[in-house]
Amino acid sequence: METKYTLIENVNLITAIDSKDNIYWNDDLINEKNISVLIENDKIAEISSKISKSGIDKVIDGNDKLLMPSLINTHTHSPMNLFRGLADDLELDTWLNEYVWPVESGLNGDLCYLGAQIAIMEMIKSGTTCFSDMYFFMDYVAKAVEDGGLRAVLSNGMIDFSDEEKRKNEFKESENLIKKWNNKSDGRIKVFFGPHSPITASKELLTGVREKANKYDVGINIHMNETQKEIENILNQYNMRPFEYLNEIGFLDGDVLAAHCVWLSDNEIDIIKEKDIKVSYNPGSNMKLASGIAPISDLIEKNICVSLGSDGVASNNNLDLFEEMKLASLLQKVDTLNPKSLTAEQTIKMATINGARALGLENEIGSIEIGKKADMILVNTNSIAMSPSVNSLISHLVYSANGSTVDTTICNGDILMENKNLNVFNEEESLKNLNLATSKLKKVLN
Amino acid sequence: METKYTLIENVNLITAIDSKDNIYWNDDLINEKNISVLIENDKIAEISSKISKSGIDKVIDGNDKLLMPSLINTHTHSPMNLFRGLADDLELDTWLNEYVWPVESGLNGDLCYLGAQIAIMEMIKSGTTCFSDMYFFMDYVAKAVEDGGLRAVLSNGMIDFSDEEKRKNEFKESENLIKKWNNKSDGRIKVFFGPHSPITASKELLTGVREKANKYDVGINIHMNETQKEIENILNQYNMRPFEYLNEIGFLDGDVLAAHCVWLSDNEIDIIKEKDIKVSYNPGSNMKLASGIAPISDLIEKNICVSLGSDGVASNNNLDLFEEMKLASLLQKVDTLNPKSLTAEQTIKMATINGARALGLENEIGSIEIGKKADMILVNTNSIAMSPSVNSLISHLVYSANGSTVDTTICNGDILMENKNLNVFNEEESLKNLNLATSKLKKVLN
Repeated sequence: METKYTLIENVNLITAIDSKDNIYWNDDLINEKNISVLIENDKIAEISSKISKSGIDKVIDGNDKLLMPSLINTHTHSPMNLFRGLADDLELDTWLNEYVWPVESGLNGDLCYLGAQIAIMEMIKSGTTCFSDMYFFMDYVAKAVEDGGLRAVLSNGMIDFSDEEKRKNEFKESENLIKKWNNKSDGRIKVFFGPHSPITASKELLTGVREKANKYDVGINIHMNETQKEIENILNQYNMRPFEYLNEIGFLDGDVLAAHCVWLSDNEIDIIKEKDIKVSYNPGSNMKLASGIAPISDLIEKNICVSLGSDGVASNNNLDLFEEMKLASLLQKVDTLNPKSLTAEQTIKMATINGARALGLENEIGSIEIGKKADMILVNTNSIAMSPSVNSLISHLVYSANGSTVDTTICNGDILMENKNLNVFNEEESLKNLNLATSKLKKVLN
Repeated sequence: METKYTLIENVNLITAIDSKDNIYWNDDLINEKNISVLIENDKIAEISSKISKSGIDKVIDGNDKLLMPSLINTHTHSPMNLFRGLADDLELDTWLNEYVWPVESGLNGDLCYLGAQIAIMEMIKSGTTCFSDMYFFMDYVAKAVEDGGLRAVLSNGMIDFSDEEKRKNEFKESENLIKKWNNKSDGRIKVFFGPHSPITASKELLTGVREKANKYDVGINIHMNETQKEIENILNQYNMRPFEYLNEIGFLDGDVLAAHCVWLSDNEIDIIKEKDIKVSYNPGSNMKLASGIAPISDLIEKNICVSLGSDGVASNNNLDLFEEMKLASLLQKVDTLNPKSLTAEQTIKMATINGARALGLENEIGSIEIGKKADMILVNTNSIAMSPSVNSLISHLVYSANGSTVDTTICNGDILMENKNLNVFNEEESLKNLNLATSKLKKVLN
């Protein structure tokens, strides 16, 4: 394969987050406007004010742009893009029993490909290039990721409700997904096990997952402590809280990504810290479903790795991580009645380098550093949301901007969107297909 | 003056909110795609499936668009667009004393015009056409509103700290503003009195405002019960809570627009109901400044008129009311742990018809009805945020869309933005001036 060189030149500012969590802003170079970043195939090869243009295949003008690591969404269900606005403002039980589950019963692989495809376009347009996904028909989601050029960690959602036959099938499905897709698509796809939650997955399933996760050397993606009801359920069954129960059965380790974590006891927080569990904070979903407010400020104070997730669009209702960053910070501030909670800088790390850590990808993505994969975005600083640009750009990114401020999105060295034009998929055709598919799926509701 | 006719044709859906608060969606007409709205000068003249194009000056294609009333922002400080991202994640006192007040001391009329100009562009781009503003140099803000084509209710922020000289000047300033601008610019500008708050405005100022508001027949815009600290302050001084104190001195009436209302006792809620006080809910600012969560669900249950405000961009940090609608609803849901709190439909009314009521403009704006002013927006439904468009569009508008989904903005019959192109001001030039101005103002901080 021939080497491909891409040069981003004259970028006003670069943010690089190093392994010690410092964010670098080349503020003193603003007026020079001559910082350039060289991408060699899929990797960042050079960051300098003097890079020769000879031999470069593609030059991107970075004038009036901010270059930053692209965002990482550590919890979503991409095929649920079929269901945005299907039903809202309802009790969880009504929402699940009367809307989500009936329409999900009509799903197939092609529909999940379509849902994932829309989700991928939405993420590219709003600056996210890596996501952790849990759903069914994940083989089709993997194909959509391969075609769409993103990076993803995919999990087959495993539910057995203590039924042995179901359990066997879930393991078969999950292991097939690992064999077929783990480390595939130029390394853009990883596979995790995805036991749905300690409520929907039996003890046998959970211990089996731990064993096989070790065998295949893959991580585990699980929903934890989302609602008070589910905690009562576990308490009644095991006389322990969910993290205590999982600790007891030897399930917990540093490869576990726990989504939600809304209701946590002090002892559970200690377990999370001790076992180095990675947390995915989902403020939008937790607010919209009225689940509660996760004690993120406490977790961060204990140096627990907290990343950011949108959850599926049926409970958010979008995949815009810029919006999610704002929700994340503002919710912590009002909950603690402390305006210093979850600062803009902490929030941007949550959505970048901590996302990489949560997925075990911190050596590959999450910051702009030589040798890392070229996963990055250009944000238009010559826009009202980012103005005055002489003030804090980190503040603008978190508190003022939304995904529409993203101009260019690069993943694994490939330009997936440039000047707001998508280079993958056909948006108009996909949206037409989406309306047709959703209309059909909804017929079961009438 | 010659009559000007504008026709919006083939609009997929129309939402009209009537005086009984019903939202009409012409769902059954989607497939016909032939609803048209005729604007005659500044007013809605006809809504029908058959409007002749003869004699029409301007035709707007409504295909793949949703027509809805434009949004109304009932609390902001538009010149603060000079200060976005100036300082964040700080205690209120530090933020005010060390950042906001020092830079505000360098303000002048031209700078306030510039800040208001940026705010107006931001509002037009995100679908807001009417705002209630309180600041200094309001004469210049009025000029920016006149030039920018928006509708606004303007108040000179009155602060006397019990100093008689100051008080006299504030009344002079406010009365001049009324005489010069109330009902001017084709009726787009109204003036309210703007006593800043019961902390910063003396009893003499407040009673004087009530008297003069009656004399001039204008409303009153005031900050109320934003932080716990300010309530303690009033309690210590008067042995009453703020609304009780204002009630006692005869200040309260249905023409009072009270911003924030975060901390309210049951008795204060009763007073608000009894006196028909209009509330401006500012969720983004209340979260970011860690002020607290306003009991909006309770107020709505009591049929109190709650409208929506962004506050200034120094504490939000944008003027996107679509984002504010989502914050508004999600914050109530998580606070009450009830997903049915503040539904999408209630939220959209808050940002439209209730905004009109809060400003005493319910007979002019806030809904798409024959005879009302043509203040409306077209939202692009052929977008990912609004898809699948066969699902609830109200849900998409509140929970999924942001201001960038707005395609066309019309105020008082004038097209201020069409297909995302602004027809007023020069954005690039203004943003350059903004950076220069902010850089100068910030010098006092070094």
